Amino acid sequence: MTDHADTTIRVRYAETDQMGVAYHSNYFVWFEVGRVELCRQLGLEYAKMEAEDDSFLVVAKAFCRYKRPARFDDLLTIRTRVANWQRRTIRFVYEVFHQGSGELIAAGETLHVICDRRGRPKSLPLKYRGYFPAVPSTESKSLGGRTPANMETPK
Amino acid sequence: MTDHADTTIRVRYAETDQMGVAYHSNYFVWFEVGRVELCRQLGLEYAKMEAEDDSFLVVAKAFCRYKRPARFDDLLTIRTRVANWQRRTIRFVYEVFHQGSGELIAAGETLHVICDRRGRPKSLPLKYRGYFPAVPSTESKSLGGRTPANMETPK
Amino acid sequence: MTDHADTTIRVRYAETDQMGVAYHSNYFVWFEVGRVELCRQLGLEYAKMEAEDDSFLVVAKAFCRYKRPARFDDLLTIRTRVANWQRRTIRFVYEVFHQGSGELIAAGETLHVICDRRGRPKSLPLKYRGYFPAVPSTESKSLGGRTPANMETPK
Amino acid sequence: MTDHADTTIRVRYAETDQMGVAYHSNYFVWFEVGRVELCRQLGLEYAKMEAEDDSFLVVAKAFCRYKRPARFDDLLTIRTRVANWQRRTIRFVYEVFHQGSGELIAAGETLHVICDRRGRPKSLPLKYRGYFPAVPSTESKSLGGRTPANMETPK
Repeated sequence: MTDHADTTIRVRYAETDQMGVAYHSNYFVWFEVGRVELCRQLGLEYAKMEAEDDSFLVVAKAFCRYKRPARFDDLLTIRTRVANWQRRTIRFVYEVFHQGSGELIAAGETLHVICDRRGRPKSLPLKYRGYFPAVPSTESKSLGGRTPANMETPK
Repeated sequence: MTDHADTTIRVRYAETDQMGVAYHSNYFVWFEVGRVELCRQLGLEYAKMEAEDDSFLVVAKAFCRYKRPARFDDLLTIRTRVANWQRRTIRFVYEVFHQGSGELIAAGETLHVICDRRGRPKSLPLKYRGYFPAVPSTESKSLGGRTPANMETPK
Repeated sequence: MTDHADTTIRVRYAETDQMGVAYHSNYFVWFEVGRVELCRQLGLEYAKMEAEDDSFLVVAKAFCRYKRPARFDDLLTIRTRVANWQRRTIRFVYEVFHQGSGELIAAGETLHVICDRRGRPKSLPLKYRGYFPAVPSTESKSLGGRTPANMETPK
Repeated sequence: MTDHADTTIRVRYAETDQMGVAYHSNYFVWFEVGRVELCRQLGLEYAKMEAEDDSFLVVAKAFCRYKRPARFDDLLTIRTRVANWQRRTIRFVYEVFHQGSGELIAAGETLHVICDRRGRPKSLPLKYRGYFPAVPSTESKSLGGRTPANMETPK
């Protein structure tokens, strides 16, 4: 079973800011692109999960650590994994690589609660559980073992 | 000295998604609006800090926890504080309240590294240090004392 | 009856691009903000028009002419008018002024078709017709009498 | 010489709105993606044009006509052409097709003025002129011969 999905993004001019780099909130949009592609590669079409099974992956937490800037027209790889999942939640982790240099430029996580269209938490439908890798929910694969979302001063 | 700044945001149609709520990456844009307003209330015009003092607040980490949805046309209060700062970094914390109900709908943090226009870390110019409250840098005011950016399963 | 609505926008950092000015697609978001405010001042809450009367203002055409740049932190006035309306369509026109200099920095238009939630054109509900000014639908108020959306080479 | 460039876009969740379709301002971002790809196919890297030749394609006018909605996860083709160019201006035209159905869902145009980094109009550097097709500047190829950006009521 697929362990991760690699998706290519090209930085859009619209995504840059006057600092000449990609504005930080865009990384969360790129994470979404990576997440949708990982689901697709696992056999799960997210649009159908919403429309046919009334199951929405509502974002409960989002974190990103920025290491190096991304610039206009850069080709980036968004590497996405399911870190762990439980009956009502799924945690995805992401790494963003610069394709030119191979450098890691950012890493992040999102935690999702499965909800119905009215926003009420529900269990992930049984039919979808087989799509996700059997990741022990206590093991943190995120961000190389470090506390995933610590906000301490970067070195 | 101002301890926090409250800024009003009205949710734009463009900020909603097909779930009928504000898409999660927009909260980081609202945090930026709150941060710029806090700086202004502290006497610091961020545009000048970039243009005249070659000092950019580059985002190194960003975190948000989403508690309740925000919807089109909702009026929100973005409450922004400087959690702590050191010579080369500043950490802001944010709370987002729904003005109608008074409920807290999200809380987050951003950590910034002061850089010059080429992206090299530098010390916050002396003239700006007086603008920021004397927050002990070891005290975490963020998110009510809990580990600020923990990504555990929400209750 | 209100002839136009003036709404204030402050340019967000997220809205700038690496040219150091507001990216052009954001003006259409600002037009939306102006349009929603004009509706509110006319007594019409757009959120209710969708939710309670199954009437959506679907954008059929959008145009903007950019005259001067808008920059980060600039305060802008979005002046919005109903240029004309018919049973199934409404045309809004917009002017964007820089509050510091008073200069017109952009002008544009959007044409909307009233649709139900499935995207099928319908007539504007009778109860809303009184909200809009009696603008002869053949008179073009847009852009000072010039062909509104001509794409000729600017002088 | 390449007459047009076809670029594939997949509609992002972030680009949808609560109507369940792609928000209209995003089409102008997609046009940008198509424009940058057309330039690349013509041999012109836009990032270098800015950085090395101090030539920016500043948007002076933008227009889009929306015919059918685009939805989350849809694959779209952005077909981009240079409609005409003169010493100081270039006009691009775009068609957006739904890859599933082949239907045209939108068509638009952008007019650009070549400027230096301070925003002053300049002539397109000689070295770039050979990159663009020899389109008679008086012939309008845009939008099938109809007045390109007319804002009349759609049928």
